[in-house]
Amino acid sequence: MSGPVKGGAQNVAQGVVHGVGLGPGDQELMSVRADRLIRNARHVAFFRKKGRAGQARRIVEGMIAEGATEHPMEYPVTTEIPVSDPRYNQILSAFYAECTERLTKLAEVGEDVVVLCEGDPFFYGSFMHLHSRLQVPVEVIPATTGMSAAWTATGMPVTWGDDVLTVLMGTLGEDDLVRHMEAADAVVVMKIGRNFEKVRRALTRAGRAEAAWIVEFAAMPQQTVRKLAEVGDGVTPYFSIVIVHGQGRRP
Amino acid sequence: MSGPVKGGAQNVAQGVVHGVGLGPGDQELMSVRADRLIRNARHVAFFRKKGRAGQARRIVEGMIAEGATEHPMEYPVTTEIPVSDPRYNQILSAFYAECTERLTKLAEVGEDVVVLCEGDPFFYGSFMHLHSRLQVPVEVIPATTGMSAAWTATGMPVTWGDDVLTVLMGTLGEDDLVRHMEAADAVVVMKIGRNFEKVRRALTRAGRAEAAWIVEFAAMPQQTVRKLAEVGDGVTPYFSIVIVHGQGRRP
Ligand SMILES: C[S@@+](CC[C@H](N)C(=O)[O-])C[C@H]1O[C@@H](n2cnc3c(N)ncnc32)[C@H](O)[C@@H]1O
Ligand SMILES: C[S@@+](CC[C@H](N)C(=O)[O-])C[C@H]1O[C@@H](n2cnc3c(N)ncnc32)[C@H](O)[C@@H]1O
Repeated sequence: MSGPVKGGAQNVAQGVVHGVGLGPGDQELMSVRADRLIRNARHVAFFRKKGRAGQARRIVEGMIAEGATEHPMEYPVTTEIPVSDPRYNQILSAFYAECTERLTKLAEVGEDVVVLCEGDPFFYGSFMHLHSRLQVPVEVIPATTGMSAAWTATGMPVTWGDDVLTVLMGTLGEDDLVRHMEAADAVVVMKIGRNFEKVRRALTRAGRAEAAWIVEFAAMPQQTVRKLAEVGDGVTPYFSIVIVHGQGRRP
Repeated sequence: MSGPVKGGAQNVAQGVVHGVGLGPGDQELMSVRADRLIRNARHVAFFRKKGRAGQARRIVEGMIAEGATEHPMEYPVTTEIPVSDPRYNQILSAFYAECTERLTKLAEVGEDVVVLCEGDPFFYGSFMHLHSRLQVPVEVIPATTGMSAAWTATGMPVTWGDDVLTVLMGTLGEDDLVRHMEAADAVVVMKIGRNFEKVRRALTRAGRAEAAWIVEFAAMPQQTVRKLAEVGDGVTPYFSIVIVHGQGRRP
């Protein structure tokens, strides 16, 4: 579908935008298909914060072919404006529209593009905001999630028998967190960072703090695995996940 | 760690039991690491029902090296005795102990063993019952879950913003299902099969039936994707998953 472009865009088969799940961070945990798509890509796009290398880009270090074109998509805001401010949505929305246009232009001249996605693209991923806007052919490659790498790192299965697993974002309100933590058997909390103390209070109120683990940078070189009780006050990195294992039936 | 065994077991480095997540079914969705471990394995073990090929074994068709030894582990019961019968647990427990012994004997003479696991091994997987019993070195390789392949197959992201995702087993009681389906934003139901009508009733009572999708054999050749409303009465295959997508914040 890619290949030399002849004639106007009208006469060229459209390229495909591949939303490629990279898995949690270890190149060995990437799928065979993701590995091949990335190594053969002529265009590689990825999100990053301004002035940062970008985690998705870092995961594929050494895999991108010589001569491939890289398309960093740099977030205009992330923490400066509160999520509740209406301008936050407007700015982000314009940004995603602009990225969509960039990828569309490539696809329209017959170029395939690989968009690098941390973990699984359709599981709280940024690529979803392009996917919902793109009108050109899109293919999504599922992948191992960060949470799978996190519970594997604890050395204990996350769910047994008919355990109920609930996945929560640390950005939720404390009372909502408590309610869901009480109702589930196994609990995963993502997007912790500056919400760490709130998440810990919620786990304590729900009676789950003692059983909780926190995994930072799962499947990355700097991975750490600790019981929550061993963690001091403060903030955890963006790549951190809380795991409370289920205790269901096991013959 | 494997290689020719010299001297008694005492003098040999122990082999490693690798619990290898295969992902949802497509060989291309297997991790690079799983792919290599399977192709190089001298011993490949997997669960199956008596008289069946076994889904895990089917996924790796064509990948096992010539000369490798296969170790099918055949379930003694699955549906003949109800799960509530105490004999069910006893029989299964003895079976897992026997499998553990078999793998241990291989590891003790320095042989590495690959155990094939559908999806992610630590997410409601059978391998967990060996993992909790094994005393020899074990390594677990996380993988893409069946549910990731299922929501990807629907063409829509499963969770946005701070959506709450709850994963439920169709084996739960109807009232429990309803309660959890009402509380969550996004819902996944696994182990449906003969529980299909109960799961559908629960979705209806929770007001989630109209938004529900059912994916059979996600990422397998016979994959089907339907809205639940289009599905007739009856039973669905073992490999089927219900997805209710979250509708959270999206700039
Ligand atoms: C925007 S979500 C993206 C999730 C991703 N699509 C996935 O499938 O894992 C970002 C959150 O995922 C979690 N996360 C993803 N990968 C991780 C990893 N390797 N280690 C720790 N946390 C991770 C963190 O909680 C982080 O705040
Ligand atoms: C014992 S659980 C194992 C789950 C597995 N460890 C995983 O990570 O997906 C079996 C259930 O997983 C679901 N499942 C796993 N893979 C699937 C697939 N490819 N398509 C549909 N359902 C699947 C089905 O609901 C099935 O009843």
